[in-house]
Amino acid sequence: MAVARDIDDLPKNAANYTALTPLWFVERAAQVHPTRKSIIHGSRHYTWRQTYQRCRRLASALSNRSIGLGNTVAVIAPNIPALYEAHFGIPMAGAVLNTVNTRLNASTVAFLLGHSSAEVVIVDQDFFSLAEEALKIWSEKNKTFRPPILIVIGDENCDPKTLQYALDKGAIEYEEFLQSGDPEYAWKPPEDEWQSIALGYTSGTTASPKGVVLHHRGAYLMSLSGALIWGMSEGAVYLWTLPMFHCNGWCYTWTVAALCGTNICLRQVTARAVYEAIAKYKVTHFSAAPVVLNTICNAPANETILPLPHIVNVTTAGAAPPPSVLSAMSQRGFRVTHTYGLSETFGPSTVCAWKPEWESLPIETQARLHARQGVRYIGLEGLEVLNTKTLKPVPADGKTVGEIVMRGNVVMKGYLKNPKANEESFANGWFHTGDLAVKHPDGYMEIKDRSKDIIISGAENISSVEIENTLYSHPAILEASVVARPDEKWGESPCAFVTLKQGVDTSNEQLLIDDIFKFCRAKMPAYWVPKSVIFGPLPKTATGKIQKNLLRARTKELGPVKISKL
Amino acid sequence: MAVARDIDDLPKNAANYTALTPLWFVERAAQVHPTRKSIIHGSRHYTWRQTYQRCRRLASALSNRSIGLGNTVAVIAPNIPALYEAHFGIPMAGAVLNTVNTRLNASTVAFLLGHSSAEVVIVDQDFFSLAEEALKIWSEKNKTFRPPILIVIGDENCDPKTLQYALDKGAIEYEEFLQSGDPEYAWKPPEDEWQSIALGYTSGTTASPKGVVLHHRGAYLMSLSGALIWGMSEGAVYLWTLPMFHCNGWCYTWTVAALCGTNICLRQVTARAVYEAIAKYKVTHFSAAPVVLNTICNAPANETILPLPHIVNVTTAGAAPPPSVLSAMSQRGFRVTHTYGLSETFGPSTVCAWKPEWESLPIETQARLHARQGVRYIGLEGLEVLNTKTLKPVPADGKTVGEIVMRGNVVMKGYLKNPKANEESFANGWFHTGDLAVKHPDGYMEIKDRSKDIIISGAENISSVEIENTLYSHPAILEASVVARPDEKWGESPCAFVTLKQGVDTSNEQLLIDDIFKFCRAKMPAYWVPKSVIFGPLPKTATGKIQKNLLRARTKELGPVKISKL
Repeated sequence: MAVARDIDDLPKNAANYTALTPLWFVERAAQVHPTRKSIIHGSRHYTWRQTYQRCRRLASALSNRSIGLGNTVAVIAPNIPALYEAHFGIPMAGAVLNTVNTRLNASTVAFLLGHSSAEVVIVDQDFFSLAEEALKIWSEKNKTFRPPILIVIGDENCDPKTLQYALDKGAIEYEEFLQSGDPEYAWKPPEDEWQSIALGYTSGTTASPKGVVLHHRGAYLMSLSGALIWGMSEGAVYLWTLPMFHCNGWCYTWTVAALCGTNICLRQVTARAVYEAIAKYKVTHFSAAPVVLNTICNAPANETILPLPHIVNVTTAGAAPPPSVLSAMSQRGFRVTHTYGLSETFGPSTVCAWKPEWESLPIETQARLHARQGVRYIGLEGLEVLNTKTLKPVPADGKTVGEIVMRGNVVMKGYLKNPKANEESFANGWFHTGDLAVKHPDGYMEIKDRSKDIIISGAENISSVEIENTLYSHPAILEASVVARPDEKWGESPCAFVTLKQGVDTSNEQLLIDDIFKFCRAKMPAYWVPKSVIFGPLPKTATGKIQKNLLRARTKELGPVKISKL
Repeated sequence: MAVARDIDDLPKNAANYTALTPLWFVERAAQVHPTRKSIIHGSRHYTWRQTYQRCRRLASALSNRSIGLGNTVAVIAPNIPALYEAHFGIPMAGAVLNTVNTRLNASTVAFLLGHSSAEVVIVDQDFFSLAEEALKIWSEKNKTFRPPILIVIGDENCDPKTLQYALDKGAIEYEEFLQSGDPEYAWKPPEDEWQSIALGYTSGTTASPKGVVLHHRGAYLMSLSGALIWGMSEGAVYLWTLPMFHCNGWCYTWTVAALCGTNICLRQVTARAVYEAIAKYKVTHFSAAPVVLNTICNAPANETILPLPHIVNVTTAGAAPPPSVLSAMSQRGFRVTHTYGLSETFGPSTVCAWKPEWESLPIETQARLHARQGVRYIGLEGLEVLNTKTLKPVPADGKTVGEIVMRGNVVMKGYLKNPKANEESFANGWFHTGDLAVKHPDGYMEIKDRSKDIIISGAENISSVEIENTLYSHPAILEASVVARPDEKWGESPCAFVTLKQGVDTSNEQLLIDDIFKFCRAKMPAYWVPKSVIFGPLPKTATGKIQKNLLRARTKELGPVKISKL
């Protein structure tokens, strides 16, 4: 049959094709809702008109200093307006935003700045010393080091001394830097939507940070997809409990602009601050790792405002939330959406899509179904669980474990200057997450573990996540993390690190440990029961992820389990 | 400053880049909500699993007949499941869907089928004779004519005789055709998201239809953008009052799949059917031209179900809705979103974004603000009102008229085989809508007229829309359309065609006309007052647009206004 090619013979032109980029969102927000609040940070309030002008000033000021295409600008700051502005202003200049985790130590920050060749470092006054030390380390290690432009952000909520210190050291004050820029700066979208928009380093649960490079196209698509998956609509009020430096706040930085919503900043996340913001600003949405939800649920009554004055939507991700936490949040009136993703996928990219028919099930069943990582986002085109050897999909039996792989437009460009990691992670046309999961008969997947977190005891695989879920349902336990400990007999055996709830009687520790053993024995196979239980605070990344690598290091210090206690 | 290009040196690969296409949506809906109702058409119900299988069967059956890339498949049908399936099945085969307006006459349909070189015609049984006649005309006019594959869709709501007639004429029955296809057909996304997905001909308000070619990229983006603008979320129940053949149902065909929602089909749109569907299926959203809203508002009490059992969201577009209609809808509890767009922009692409601060204004002021065409959609990157001579933006004074122009990713590829129209409509890097508007101080634009609908009387421009808005507020008038009538003294003068509400006393027509004159004189400049008022039904396109070209033809038949009556 003849092919009538006329139908496709219509080329792109300036009127019908432009790069997808989330930068359009802030321009639109300023046009449509110029006087609506864009950002609230304590007593500082901005409107969308102001935010757009400030972003353009930032872009212009950077551009005046020849910062543009191919340059990286690092920002070291908590959730303050300047970090939000950086998400638009830096890419408007054509440059790439590198958000730096504020909890890293100076030598890691030095590695990041050097690895990404940061040309500009914008730092919150309270983290100036960290930046200063990092720059010193970088300069000492690299003979071709050229000092980046150093800009310090003042915040009236901080001690004026740290700002003065930074200024004395020659840093440019952020507001002054903005003043040097043109509020009407005529930014342009990137010529190619594949251009890099952001760089973020994987956080400390693995040894050496990898630089995840994200593109404008994916940032645009994830911003919209995230809103649709969450039922987030025009004018949403978003509370920044999740650090913006963590994977660009899962792209909600850009989503809030797309929806002409309002950003509520929090320098420090406490249960009291969260509840107060909900009541004061009518917060409609926030995101947090399960450990933060745990804190919110277990806050003393005088720090909470319950019942909630209105429905608050919460997205959680970053670890499989224990059913007990999901259930507790739901009982307090939070509407929790459970998602899963990685920095490499622009943040969450799968969701445990809720089904109305689940409403009639017992609450425990609901929580169990809800704790699964679910199905792909609208913006993600492919999601599978593959047998790690055959690379074929595992059967949807809820039992067979395989690796979660993804493909689509919300997958990173790759790791910066790391061809080996790129080759591995993009093998066979999939992005390999390194997370192990099963697929249930309804098609929803459920994570069993990070591949490196699996405990192999007597040649049997043990899921640390499943043991943790059981521990979280123990009445005395606030947080739990289970890792492999060397074991003379079994090779490895589970070791549990736990923190206890307020008010738990700790006078007889052994009694408590025995009770936990007993509790576990009643609920899991004998070889799953942790052989050791250790009390104390858990080391966490800035995003609230428990650092299992540090716990594993501690089990090595403890030495191998000598004899089976059970 | 050195440019570190490493940051952009990461090529696309199979894991992080794929074509944007709405076809992903139906696959995802079938995975996530396989048993949820996808389409309800009278007593026929489908689930998403079934719909996805049926779409794949259609793609496979077409592919078996060598229909694919570069081919056009025409569908002539009202809002029935087969037309919905065509939106996925035809592009899954790589072909282009041409939805044909069922109210066109045979010679126009013949023109369309010939112009688009239709290789397959899928036609509803009640429109088989239309297709048959069109094919006859086409074959007579074109010697190289080769008969397309002819498929007839049976519908149990129709007379079995028309189906039998089609089968006797050799048409393949649609269900039988589907059976020849593989329900597991491995469709692929287009290699290039710029590939054409749909073709639609501009409707009859202009002389010769132009074929608007839409691309996969835009269809994907508009589907998401339309949902976000409207606050439409997961599981929406969408009632098909708007014909799917009109600009692919403003892309809501694809949106409903993206949201795993439910489509309620209506073969025939009546006020009674709309109210019944709302109550029976808990309809959350529908779209309709203002004239349809008018019918819904003015329906006799026994055809309505009021108050509404729940909030129903309505998007209207296609003409500037008179404030009186917006106000009446709002009073009945419908939440109306007023949008504006063209087939060339994938349907509505601007919206009168509602502002909470308007709530406290008088209802008439609200309706007036709401009747404006507003601001750009999230998916549209550029919107301006340009002085037609200088091509500079008009001042935002609410007075200066210019042409609405747009640019962005939801603008068509172009008109099929029409280089002249493409050159004109894409001049100067903008898509030119041909609609005339002002920009208000708040940045919202408001249409004053189609450029060809402007009435030029004594060298003064008169907006037919503004006269119509006034006429709609007259208690006796149901519908009004104003066009230019030749005028011996003034060149042109306004001529009003009106239909009256049920129950209006028409025994003394002149009394009524005089009352309308008086009403107009009180509300507009003397030279705007229509010199003639003519009663009778208004000619409309399939989408409810009043056909001003036919009314203008009638004023020519009437001859010029001889003397000024006022």
